[in-house]
Amino acid sequence: MNGEATTTGPYEEVYDPIRPELRAVIANIATLALEQGSRESAMAGQLEHVLSAPGKRLRPAITLLASRLWGAPSDMDVMMGTGVELLHIATLIHDDTVDAADMRRGRETASNLWGRNVAVLLGDYVFAAAARFVCDTNNVRLVRRFAETIMELSRGELNELLDGKDTRVTRDAYYQRIFDKTASLFTTAAESGAVLGGAPESEIQLVRNYGYKLGMAYQVLDDVLDYDSTSEELGKPAGNDLKEGVLTLPAIMYIEARPESNPVLDLFKSVRTAPKNGKSEADDDDLANAIQSVRDSGFIEKSREVAQQFIDEARDSLSGLPDTEERAALETLADLTGGRRS
Amino acid sequence: MNGEATTTGPYEEVYDPIRPELRAVIANIATLALEQGSRESAMAGQLEHVLSAPGKRLRPAITLLASRLWGAPSDMDVMMGTGVELLHIATLIHDDTVDAADMRRGRETASNLWGRNVAVLLGDYVFAAAARFVCDTNNVRLVRRFAETIMELSRGELNELLDGKDTRVTRDAYYQRIFDKTASLFTTAAESGAVLGGAPESEIQLVRNYGYKLGMAYQVLDDVLDYDSTSEELGKPAGNDLKEGVLTLPAIMYIEARPESNPVLDLFKSVRTAPKNGKSEADDDDLANAIQSVRDSGFIEKSREVAQQFIDEARDSLSGLPDTEERAALETLADLTGGRRS
Repeated sequence: MNGEATTTGPYEEVYDPIRPELRAVIANIATLALEQGSRESAMAGQLEHVLSAPGKRLRPAITLLASRLWGAPSDMDVMMGTGVELLHIATLIHDDTVDAADMRRGRETASNLWGRNVAVLLGDYVFAAAARFVCDTNNVRLVRRFAETIMELSRGELNELLDGKDTRVTRDAYYQRIFDKTASLFTTAAESGAVLGGAPESEIQLVRNYGYKLGMAYQVLDDVLDYDSTSEELGKPAGNDLKEGVLTLPAIMYIEARPESNPVLDLFKSVRTAPKNGKSEADDDDLANAIQSVRDSGFIEKSREVAQQFIDEARDSLSGLPDTEERAALETLADLTGGRRS
Repeated sequence: MNGEATTTGPYEEVYDPIRPELRAVIANIATLALEQGSRESAMAGQLEHVLSAPGKRLRPAITLLASRLWGAPSDMDVMMGTGVELLHIATLIHDDTVDAADMRRGRETASNLWGRNVAVLLGDYVFAAAARFVCDTNNVRLVRRFAETIMELSRGELNELLDGKDTRVTRDAYYQRIFDKTASLFTTAAESGAVLGGAPESEIQLVRNYGYKLGMAYQVLDDVLDYDSTSEELGKPAGNDLKEGVLTLPAIMYIEARPESNPVLDLFKSVRTAPKNGKSEADDDDLANAIQSVRDSGFIEKSREVAQQFIDEARDSLSGLPDTEERAALETLADLTGGRRS
């Protein structure tokens, strides 16, 4: 599939019921660069670069699958799926700008290639283009939910930045943050599909809950992998969250269990005075000690159990829905998410 | 008026027919900071800072006035006006981040206070909040136009950045850029008011054209003032556009008239090799020469004539509309814009 990371692989079963529609989503995304024509060729080239990055397209896949559960998919599901994926892409552009990341999935980031100013404005453009595609559904409920999702996404990223190196972050604050930054968009992807598929309200809520739980599991596992993987598996340095001063579930549980003194608290004390907005270069030994202490604490496994609980709840939500191949694909997606290693 | 720069002054006549509604817009904007409650107090404080800056509120005033021209204003005009003004605020946040501006209207900018990363994400949040208010109108046409406006705004800023120091910029490219960065939102402010006021389509187009011409005049005059004012009048350094490598109408006309050799071309040659994304520190003498040469060329006055032409066309558009006090206020706004000195 053009623009797709995995032409064969475990996700094939997820894509099978929606291949033409997913292809249409990817084609829509590509046309956005062409809209700028030749006059603004610099901008067209930049858009082409950021829009052609490969991806698993999980979020639009959820929208497309959900819209088919009641046997009468709307023509508008491709527009909604396009909006959902473009919003994800816009978020990545701004995240990479904020994180000053040089590479993403083996490609240079927009901020690295053209500077952070261009990246901010390109991201704005893609955000707005995402919203315009959602407007094509002609459904104000979906557009409003979409605007709220952008608010939640930016609030999540902002709070991650503002909470940096704050060792008092609670589990509740963590769950709110990962809802905002990740599960909100999964929720919207799922809910919008069900709305477009003409589901009764009670079943829309089941699909919505599927997206919510799946998104929460996805981010908890993302945070676990930051401790648990090698840098090669991740495609970025392992232990990056702690290095950047971000506490995620394993470390939050660990601090709860050992609140008086531990290597994570020591690490954050040593970097708290780092210059505003600069990359705080924590002492490498302190960082290695902190990562190892969390790995040895047992809270990596506990966090995996939390993620599996979310996965189980996501699957449970599906059991009240029509028993179709699309539902089976959503179940498979939950299982694959539970077992993800990258 | 709370949050208003001018409690008395020339614009009073513009505000008179819509005082309660404009107050409601300003109150809506203020509530956005409160939504974050106490948990995310850092974010609430930051939002309060960026949302409480004074402003002339011209854009929501246009929406509110336009919606009243047919005698049956919609309750939704306050929501639309709130969205329009929030979009303007979000744009200023990102512009100040891109320009690395320290101050705006006598207050420190978000990027100066909390760093550019926070400012990018705060701007994203306000963009999305603007769109959510527009969704409250329940009118997909308006939401779609609003999304397109955000695309145009970011494209305009992006092209200003990408065209930097390019002396081949044409008048047409300039007009497209100032439509994107300024007139697009004036157009949307006007059109949305007419749509909500229940105007017939032909009259919606007249109001839309009023907003378009007014916005074009507004930006041409903004660009003229950059040459024509003292730094004290502007509240920022005069001649800033040339310094930043941005060609506006007076310089574009000047280069058209003297394409072979002139001090502006000399200036841009001398700074073209400046480091990527850095502030290019042009030689002060070259800059002063270039500014003076444009001032002496007569194209400041020619540019003012272009702006006045736009103002006249804006006023002409109004003549086909119901003859009400709101129309008189829109006429006054056009005249005040034509005479603006800051």
